[in-house]
Amino acid sequence: MSRETADLSEAEDRARVDAEEDLEDLALGDDYALTPEFVAMVVDAADRGDAERLRELLAALHPADVADLMGFLSSDYRDEVLLHLDPEALAEILSELDTEIREEVLETVAPATLAKALEELDSDDAADLVDDLEDDKRAAVLAAMPETERAAIESSLAYEDETAGRLMQREVVWAPQFWTVGQTIDHFRREAEDLPELFFDVYVVDPSHRPVGAVPVSHLLRSRRDAPLAQIMEPVSEIPVLMDQEEVAYIFDKYHLISAPVVEPGGRLVGQITVDDIMAVIQEESEEDILALAGVSNADRNANVLDMVKARLPWLLINTLTAAIAASVIRAFEGEILKLVTLAMLMPIVASLGGNAGTQTLAVAVRGLASKELSAVNSAQTVFREMAVGLSNGVALAAVTGVVVFLLFHDPRLSLAFGLALIVNLFVASLAGALVPLALERMGRDPAVSSSVFVTFATDFTGFFAFLGIAALILL
Amino acid sequence: MSRETADLSEAEDRARVDAEEDLEDLALGDDYALTPEFVAMVVDAADRGDAERLRELLAALHPADVADLMGFLSSDYRDEVLLHLDPEALAEILSELDTEIREEVLETVAPATLAKALEELDSDDAADLVDDLEDDKRAAVLAAMPETERAAIESSLAYEDETAGRLMQREVVWAPQFWTVGQTIDHFRREAEDLPELFFDVYVVDPSHRPVGAVPVSHLLRSRRDAPLAQIMEPVSEIPVLMDQEEVAYIFDKYHLISAPVVEPGGRLVGQITVDDIMAVIQEESEEDILALAGVSNADRNANVLDMVKARLPWLLINTLTAAIAASVIRAFEGEILKLVTLAMLMPIVASLGGNAGTQTLAVAVRGLASKELSAVNSAQTVFREMAVGLSNGVALAAVTGVVVFLLFHDPRLSLAFGLALIVNLFVASLAGALVPLALERMGRDPAVSSSVFVTFATDFTGFFAFLGIAALILL
Repeated sequence: MSRETADLSEAEDRARVDAEEDLEDLALGDDYALTPEFVAMVVDAADRGDAERLRELLAALHPADVADLMGFLSSDYRDEVLLHLDPEALAEILSELDTEIREEVLETVAPATLAKALEELDSDDAADLVDDLEDDKRAAVLAAMPETERAAIESSLAYEDETAGRLMQREVVWAPQFWTVGQTIDHFRREAEDLPELFFDVYVVDPSHRPVGAVPVSHLLRSRRDAPLAQIMEPVSEIPVLMDQEEVAYIFDKYHLISAPVVEPGGRLVGQITVDDIMAVIQEESEEDILALAGVSNADRNANVLDMVKARLPWLLINTLTAAIAASVIRAFEGEILKLVTLAMLMPIVASLGGNAGTQTLAVAVRGLASKELSAVNSAQTVFREMAVGLSNGVALAAVTGVVVFLLFHDPRLSLAFGLALIVNLFVASLAGALVPLALERMGRDPAVSSSVFVTFATDFTGFFAFLGIAALILL
Repeated sequence: MSRETADLSEAEDRARVDAEEDLEDLALGDDYALTPEFVAMVVDAADRGDAERLRELLAALHPADVADLMGFLSSDYRDEVLLHLDPEALAEILSELDTEIREEVLETVAPATLAKALEELDSDDAADLVDDLEDDKRAAVLAAMPETERAAIESSLAYEDETAGRLMQREVVWAPQFWTVGQTIDHFRREAEDLPELFFDVYVVDPSHRPVGAVPVSHLLRSRRDAPLAQIMEPVSEIPVLMDQEEVAYIFDKYHLISAPVVEPGGRLVGQITVDDIMAVIQEESEEDILALAGVSNADRNANVLDMVKARLPWLLINTLTAAIAASVIRAFEGEILKLVTLAMLMPIVASLGGNAGTQTLAVAVRGLASKELSAVNSAQTVFREMAVGLSNGVALAAVTGVVVFLLFHDPRLSLAFGLALIVNLFVASLAGALVPLALERMGRDPAVSSSVFVTFATDFTGFFAFLGIAALILL
């Protein structure tokens, strides 16, 4: 190569590196979300069939960002993007994808390609992906994998969904309790190839392979080489393999764990759970709570319209039924409404404010139960406090609105009926908002899921009945 | 000591150890929450003034569990418990306590005791505690602390609440980029005393102390001693010291980080944020979203009745106003109601179903915005999809309820008016449920906070207006 061409290609290299850095800057906004400009560039490259440009754009992104990108693309463009990923990138991106998109994408990738990609993942992530496959495809993919990886995935899938067994990875670092720090480090350095890519604790096990303690990796580094592991280890919180993932998340959060050993019923160490899996669980569980409180059956953000309708219509039908029952109270008071039609205008306000107050109490109670700050120990105290809050808010609202109603309609008895009904309904709202989730929890049901139906029914019914009933007594 | 007394005291020791283990088993239920029995034992020991028993009970608990215990006790018992904690235990328990209880507890502890306790904590946790102190007490506590710790706390407090600067700890492990693995490990072992208690990444810095990469501690262990750090280091996601904590949590979650370096505007490394702080942020932010959607201003679970009223009454007053405006529509149709009083019974059902559908869309949109799965890139697509869902659900509900209304009232025109009004209101509900949070987000407001007021107003107003208006046109 002559001097000139060398200079030229160096200049080209530098220009390419600069271009890559520019792309990275362009891809993410200040808020670390993909920019619409970058998504447009990907769509444009795909439209022009410019494979080189597409690969260049994808190379500028972290796998998590490619997964985000897939969420913004229609399925044709997704397929185009998939063509340009190597097995490792494909594996990482697949495990970052949202469930709905992932299911679509998995259908389009060939079994052999998938098998290669799965080998790159930890057993828990690989099992998650395999679980999302249709039966036929699952068999084909597993058949194309090496024996060890297949066995790890199959035993992971043998555990029920949302348990510690499904959450854990089988790749775990352990050492016998009689080893010293020096022996342990030397061993790791020799066997580096067999160690997981990243780990945070070394579990110290007894001769029956039961964890008796844990040594954070940073403690290994700072301790003297001749210190026995048994001396520097810390107590561990063992996670039973059948524990529900919500419980596991609670323990991680409470004791600030980074990783924890998972044990079989006999106490044998079988895997570990790390905090990054727990972050996903916490997000998932709190999202489930929000959506359940709002009457949405599943996280349906990336679903199609039909799935979204399926996730919402059942709750709307139930609400129709309860709203109709509550409104049937009104029928009993048609005579009163005909005598004083203003009642028809004021009654929805009483029902609506009760509903709002009930929702407030309900949200606080559901979060309290989820974080275990509300439990059998303080439930009576909480219910009494909520009742006091309900009464106080009721009296305050009655005072304010009573005056307004009087100024509008010049009828002190109407004001009185409205105010009294508000107090009654806000009291009932607090009581129902606290008792309904507590009762559901005691019955072993998820308090977020159906509470709001019951509470809204209680406040609608009470709102109409209390206001029209009191009005009938006082006014007519 | 004679043989006999030695045997006796050994037996006593063994009995004591057994008793301690029994206490630990007794303290926590299968769900890792404190048992009512254990709380009763603490109350009982405090009532009897049995200090030794109380210390024994407390010693059986992890600090996080003592913090839970405090949440279940009235303030007199809390004060009694505080008397029996050493500075280290006190420090850890204080940083585990809920804000409301913490503020109460901090008032009762003497400044000198607090100063001792704070020295035991990382700078971020210590700063959090100092921030909760009244001005007078804060000055007294800081004055009682050694210079270095005081300076660290003061510079942490100089950052605004809910920023990376407040979240970070100043204790951070770094190494120059020209060191080898062996040099680094030897250095750590020599300076073990100055290292943080626990760390996960070593940040590799350039001569201006800017992070250029990170080496996970487990990679130090498995790499050859002569490997240069610059060769094994990985790229880092730098966190600007002024970044909002919600953004920081998003980055941790997205890229599965365990720790990340925090940098000043010039790029200098000033601290680190670890994943356990982020778990707390994620819980906090999702709790804020749930409560804000339900119209509760602050997490008020452990607040007294007055604080709870303050957190809820303002939203109820705003709701009263919007409900009154929506209901004033009814006044315009009083003539129609007097002609057909059944309208009064059916109109709240239309409004209520619209409200439910709006809440569903709203919850999905707010969660989508929080996780950035909904953004400028796909907002138009999302709004159209929601409109399609609203129309579909509207038509489905109209079909079902139309038949029921006909069977009840034998009036096909009433059925038609009711069904049409439902379709209109569910369409408006979807539109408002998607557009309101998107608009608030674009205006830089928190979409969870006031969305539901606007959406409920839209569905109440539309519910009354569409039903009574259509009824007036078709029926009368």
